[in-house]
This record gives sequence, structure tokens and C-alpha cells, in this order.
Amino acid sequence: MFDLLVKDAFVVSLGKKLNVGVKDGKIAYLGEEEKPAKEVLRAEGKLLFPSFANMHTHLPMTLLRGLGADLPLMDWLQKVIWKLEGEFVSPEFVRDGTIIALAEGIRSGTTLFMDMYFFEEVVGEVAKEVGVRVGLGFGILDFPTKVAKTPEEYIKRAKEFVKAFKGEELVFPVLCPHAPYTCGPSTLRKVYEIAREEDVYIHTHLAETQEEVERIKETYGNTPVMHLERLGILDQRWLCAHVVWTTEEEREILKEREVKVLHCPESNLKLASGIAPIWDYVKRGIHVCLGTDGPASNDNLNMHEEMSLMAKLQKGASLDAKAMNAQTALMIATENGFRAVGIKGGKIEEGYDADFILVNADAPHWQPLYEPISQWVYSANAEDIDTVVCKGKILMEKRELKTIDQERVKFLAQKWREKILGFMTGRGAGGGASASGAEGRGFKSPRPDV
Amino acid sequence: MFDLLVKDAFVVSLGKKLNVGVKDGKIAYLGEEEKPAKEVLRAEGKLLFPSFANMHTHLPMTLLRGLGADLPLMDWLQKVIWKLEGEFVSPEFVRDGTIIALAEGIRSGTTLFMDMYFFEEVVGEVAKEVGVRVGLGFGILDFPTKVAKTPEEYIKRAKEFVKAFKGEELVFPVLCPHAPYTCGPSTLRKVYEIAREEDVYIHTHLAETQEEVERIKETYGNTPVMHLERLGILDQRWLCAHVVWTTEEEREILKEREVKVLHCPESNLKLASGIAPIWDYVKRGIHVCLGTDGPASNDNLNMHEEMSLMAKLQKGASLDAKAMNAQTALMIATENGFRAVGIKGGKIEEGYDADFILVNADAPHWQPLYEPISQWVYSANAEDIDTVVCKGKILMEKRELKTIDQERVKFLAQKWREKILGFMTGRGAGGGASASGAEGRGFKSPRPDV
Ligand SMILES: [Zn+2]
Ligand SMILES: [Zn+2]
Repeated sequence: MFDLLVKDAFVVSLGKKLNVGVKDGKIAYLGEEEKPAKEVLRAEGKLLFPSFANMHTHLPMTLLRGLGADLPLMDWLQKVIWKLEGEFVSPEFVRDGTIIALAEGIRSGTTLFMDMYFFEEVVGEVAKEVGVRVGLGFGILDFPTKVAKTPEEYIKRAKEFVKAFKGEELVFPVLCPHAPYTCGPSTLRKVYEIAREEDVYIHTHLAETQEEVERIKETYGNTPVMHLERLGILDQRWLCAHVVWTTEEEREILKEREVKVLHCPESNLKLASGIAPIWDYVKRGIHVCLGTDGPASNDNLNMHEEMSLMAKLQKGASLDAKAMNAQTALMIATENGFRAVGIKGGKIEEGYDADFILVNADAPHWQPLYEPISQWVYSANAEDIDTVVCKGKILMEKRELKTIDQERVKFLAQKWREKILGFMTGRGAGGGASASGAEGRGFKSPRPDV
Repeated sequence: MFDLLVKDAFVVSLGKKLNVGVKDGKIAYLGEEEKPAKEVLRAEGKLLFPSFANMHTHLPMTLLRGLGADLPLMDWLQKVIWKLEGEFVSPEFVRDGTIIALAEGIRSGTTLFMDMYFFEEVVGEVAKEVGVRVGLGFGILDFPTKVAKTPEEYIKRAKEFVKAFKGEELVFPVLCPHAPYTCGPSTLRKVYEIAREEDVYIHTHLAETQEEVERIKETYGNTPVMHLERLGILDQRWLCAHVVWTTEEEREILKEREVKVLHCPESNLKLASGIAPIWDYVKRGIHVCLGTDGPASNDNLNMHEEMSLMAKLQKGASLDAKAMNAQTALMIATENGFRAVGIKGGKIEEGYDADFILVNADAPHWQPLYEPISQWVYSANAEDIDTVVCKGKILMEKRELKTIDQERVKFLAQKWREKILGFMTGRGAGGGASASGAEGRGFKSPRPDV
């Protein structure tokens, strides 16, 4: 008896209509027979693809979505984001922001998120309630925040955090030294020691902007990847977001050390960081994954959009139409992510974890349907996703979320919107802001209620 | 008595909730009073934006969508597209392909399309039946096609075409010399003469690839824009698609001559043509519009995606986060298009044509809603569009098409899919292709039925 049988889905990677049997969270049967199951999903006419792995994000930042768009990076961070985070970040902020983010992420077909933020234990609680996989990234910095005051305190808490979340089924602890310009060599070395002792991954920002490269060169006499290499800590545990600016030599190191690159093309464009040479990385055999980055710098968590952009951007930027074909883009957005953190998922095969989506190909933008993979990557959009299954559990069906109350999402958003606009306009919480009387605390006038 | 009253829409450009009265296809009232009207659209909680103007496309090519993706441009054209066009293009092909295209275009919020293809009189018929605006681009080439055999014959037929479609309400004739590498100086001069005599626009491809620039240099001793300038024919009638590769001097000419640039970022990336320096054009005061290009090289007709990509791409490519803000991107995708062809539309103001959309901002990816314009550009997607109005007529409401039968769209697509796959696999029409036995006529094996 299977837990779930998906009937008559067109399994795109195998090129035929099949039944998919799920047991204990895994794909246990792929064939034409009608097997008995506790629950049946009718998928006639729908395409079955692996679900997405969003390998770099900051989920709770949904609450700051759209604020300060079109500002240069440093103004955006210092005048808007850090100011608001300093005022508002709390377990409640993280909890509510994460609920909104997971609703959005599931609706766009994602079942694995690599997160990095504060109060990640709260993200972990929400993820377990909702039923999605999250790599809980414990943020570590050399300067004080609400979480800790000194590097030593961060390291101590990070250790406790790792112990608290090890052995869970859907969530797993990850160490997140923020970046080489916010964590000195001593902190990075200690993080690496704990990672080896506790056997966990390290998730960081690396070589995101040209400014960062200059700064690391000035401080340490090395470019960012080289800096980590010289510290003797680079290995397959490292998941590095962005990696936009690298030398030839550094690319060879990324390959040799089996470092995973987490590509975030929309964030890199929107914050004007640049265009990462991902096609070159892929050709060299570097393990590349895909992520959205935080919803405040993207400004959404839509992995389909990210996949489609990645494929086109690599062609356009390298002036080579053969660069990054649809098949490769899909693999980077799915299987490569799961594999990067040791999950046997992202592939439709017996024995793999049951993380997949059913896609409705009826809309005019799919017509005619000749090539499901390239049309999924280039013609479709995330709203075509009908059903999302994570580790055998249905999280969305007929576009309806099964484990999150979508009305509550709007309610939570409205609550924080009032608080945050109240602060920005200097009128305290709860006031329901309007455009007049803004500029209160140096913010640009926000839009009034819709 | 108004023809239509849109009640309680949040008119984003004005920053408030208003009623919009429509009469004779125009916005005739914008205010808080409840005016009498023959038809009322309740828009409480919805955002009202101008509809999109897709300023460069080849609508009937929906029927070739997704075929030959990831091939280099010349292989894609010669081995796939031209071969299939040679076999299949006919009035029936154009009619059915256009119906699919307009269904898709309306669903993604577009009410004006600048088209370029064969049998444009058929496109005109469909557009009038459906109720959208189309600039019917009569294609002109120096080599024989099904439409004409000699340059003289093209010119003769073009003149007849212009006379047949002048004075229509929704459609208007446009002259389309394909490109400077497919139309010699004599043809271009004749086209320009007719355009002046008949007072119509000229729509062409220009400076799309580096190869084109080299070819024009070799043949005429000039770069493409300069080549047209030297022919003495450049003026405000010219709408030039792509314009990716230009010199400083050419940019000044585009500005002085008031040539309109039709930017197609997705096509330029996907076909690896390059990244057009649009932000530089905008800063110089060149009139920039936006288009999707044909659905076979994009691979959809989604103007929202195009707008969002344009804004991010200009920031990323120019390494300047302030480049191309959301407001400017929205204006380029809407008002600039209408204005380029002399239509007073794309703006929500009394006296302007009633071309607008209502957008649902309830989905999690909109939460919280702080900045409607930047969230429309960066966070949203075309599926958030609830209602589309073209010249006062409702073409979609609650995502249901009012003037196209969406079931028929699927039926037509299926019909052509069988014919085209039958040809590609060498098994004649109607066979229902399968992957086995393909490669018949030199095509790569297509996917089987879903
Ligand atoms: Zn980040
Ligand atoms: Zn074109």
C-alpha cells in the first residue's frame, strides 16, 4: 500500500505518462500499473517536474519587500534595510515573515530553502509546521546584533544551535558566517572547526561585488576565494552565494575544493552587482545551484523566474546561444540544489525523495506544446504550477495551499505594514500610513493604503 | 451616461482610489462620484495600471513556439524556422497562430501589438474580431516568398495593403522592410517614399547582432544606423527593433531623427544578440519602447516579464542600481509604445484612450504591499492581471477571455502540432508524433504527446 499515487502524470524526464507511487516520503514506484494507495492525485494532462531548491535566501525579509527599490546597494542597506531591521527584527517578525515567504515559495514550486537570518530557530518551527525543508542558517558576524555581542558569543550560540537542530527530518542546521568582509579570519576558522566537528554545511556570501573584492584585497592582500583558500578552510562543505567576481585561478580552486556556487541572477542584476560567469563555471565542472536571495532585493521568491532568467542571461552575456540549455538550467534549479546538501532529491527516479510538482500546460502561453523542458523554462511561469509535493506530503493542490492559511498571510502582512509604515512616517504603529506627512524619519514617502 | 464605470480601483499613478468613467473608448471621468453607466466593473482592492504596448512581435509564430530552442541563431533560422515556414505559412496558419497569440497577449495585459509577418490582412481580421489594436506590418524583402516575387511586386502590394487598411479603428497598416541586410537601398528608399505619401510608420529590424553590423559595413561601408542616415530616409516614422549595437555617433542620430527604438531584451538574450544599452538611450532622450519579439524566440508574449527583465538587466549590465527605475520601466512598457504610433493611450488621464488593466494584489508575492509601482515591476507577474480593457471594451474579466474561446485556442494548437510534428518526423500530417522514428527530415527528435 503506497501513501500516495500520482495517476497519469506526464513525467517529463522520462518522456511518458506514468503512475508515481510514494511511500515514506520517497518515490517507490514509477510505472504503468495502478497501484493501491491511501491517497490518489489525478494528474491526467499535467507535467511532472522535480520541485525547486532555492539555495540562497533570507525568508523573513518578505516583510521589507519593495522598500527602497532602485537605490544603490549601500544606500538601500544603510538607509532602509538595516534601519528597519534594527527597529523590528524579533522572533515575531521572523515567524510572520517566514510564513509569508513559505506561502510564496510553495506557490512557486519550491520545497527546499537555504535560509540565512536571525532567530532561525523560529524559521525552523514554521518550516516543520508547514512541511517544507529548510537549511536553517545561523548568522555569524564580527559585530554585535540582537543575537550576540562578541564573535565568541556567536560561536557559542552557533554550536548550541547546531546541536539543537541536528537529526531533524525536514530542517537542518547550517553555519552562516555572513561574508569575508564581516567575519575575520579567526571567526571563519572557528566556524570551519565546528562545521567539521558537527558535520554541517557552511553557507556564506562570497565575491558578490567589485567593491567587496577591492576591500578584501586591501585588508588581506587577496581576492575573496583566494582569501578563504589561504586560510586552509575551503572544502565541499562550503555553499557560497553570488561568486560574481573571480579570477581564473579562483575558478580552478572552486572546482578542486568542490565548493558549491549559489547563483542569484535577479539579485545580482537588481543590486547592480554584475553578471556571474555561470556558464564558464558549469563548463569547468563547478557545482552550481540557484537561489532568489532575499525577497527584499529581488523582489520575490519565484524560482521559476530565476531559472528562466539564468538560462537567457548566460546566453546573452556570453554571446553564445548554445550556452546554458534548458535541460541544464532545470537541473541547476532542482537536482543540483538537493545534491549540494546531501539530499537524494530533485530527480524523478525510484529511491529518490518525493519532491515534485505537477504543472498545468493548458494556458495559451504553452500552445502548442512541442518541447516540455524548453517550454517549461522559457514560455511558462510559476502560476502554471498546480500541485506541490514535499517529501511525499501535498503542500499545494489546485493552487490551494494545504498547510498555510492564505487569508492569514494577508492579515500578517497588513499588521506589519502598518507597524513599519508607522515607524517610517514617524507616527508610531497602527496608524495606517498615508503619503502626506511622511519623510518623518528620513524615509522617502511611501504609497498610501490601496 | 458612461459606457463603462470602473468602481473603486486604486489608480496607482494618481495614488488614490477612484471611479473611472469610460465613454466612446476614452477615459471621460476620473473622480470619487458614482456616475451612471451601462456597465459597471467592481475593482475594490485592485490596482489600475495602463495596459502594455508590445511594440515588436511576429504573432503567428506561436505555432513554432519552443522549436529549436538553444540553437545558435543561424541554425535556428535555417534548419528549423525557415524550413517550417516554407512548408506551412498560409492564411490559415496566420489566422490560427494569431488567435493563440492574442489570447496569450491579452492574458498578459497587452492591448497594442506591433506585428510583422506574412498575410497581415488575416492578422487584421482576427484583431478586429478580438478587439485589440494591431499595427499590421506588411513584410518587404528583396527575395521571393509566398507574398511576392520581386522587390517591385512587394512595393506594389505594400501600397495596396496600406490603402486597404487605412482609416480603421483598431488596426493600422505599417510598412516593414525586414532589415538593412535583406532590403537594399533602392527598396528602402521606395518604402520611405510610400510611408511619406501615405503617412504611415515604418517598422524594421536594425543593428540586432554584431554579425549584422559587420555585414552592413562590408556591403555599404557603414554601420546600420549610419547606413540609413546616409540614405537620407531616417525620421520619426521609423520604429527600429533591437538596436543592440550602435556607436556614439549613431545614438546621437537616433535622438536627432526621433527614431523609436523597440527594445526586446528576452529575445536579445535568448538568441545571444547581446544587451542593448537602453539606459544610455533613455538618458540621451531617445524614445524607447518595449516588445517581446516573436513567441518562437522568447518563448512567450509576456510583456510583464519583459518589463521586469529590462529594469533589472539595465542595472546589472551598467553596474548602476539607479539605472532604469520601476517608474521608467513601466512608462517604456506602456505609454511610450502608444505614443510612438500616435495613440493617446498608456496613461490614466481624462481624454486618454481607455486601455488599462486591473491587477489583483492579493497573492503572497505581493505581501506586504508598500510600493505598488516597484512591486508591480519587480515582485508581480502577468497572472496577477484580472481584467483587461482595450479602447473601452472589456477583453478579459476575472482572467476569463471575453472575445476568444480559450478551448478553441487549445484545439487549434493541437491541430497544428500534429501537422508540424508529422512533417518533422516525415510521417505526414495527422499522425500524432512520437519520439521514435523522428529525425525524419533532419529535425531533432521532438517530444511525444503529453
Ligand atoms: Zn544574501
Ligand atoms: Zn523580430
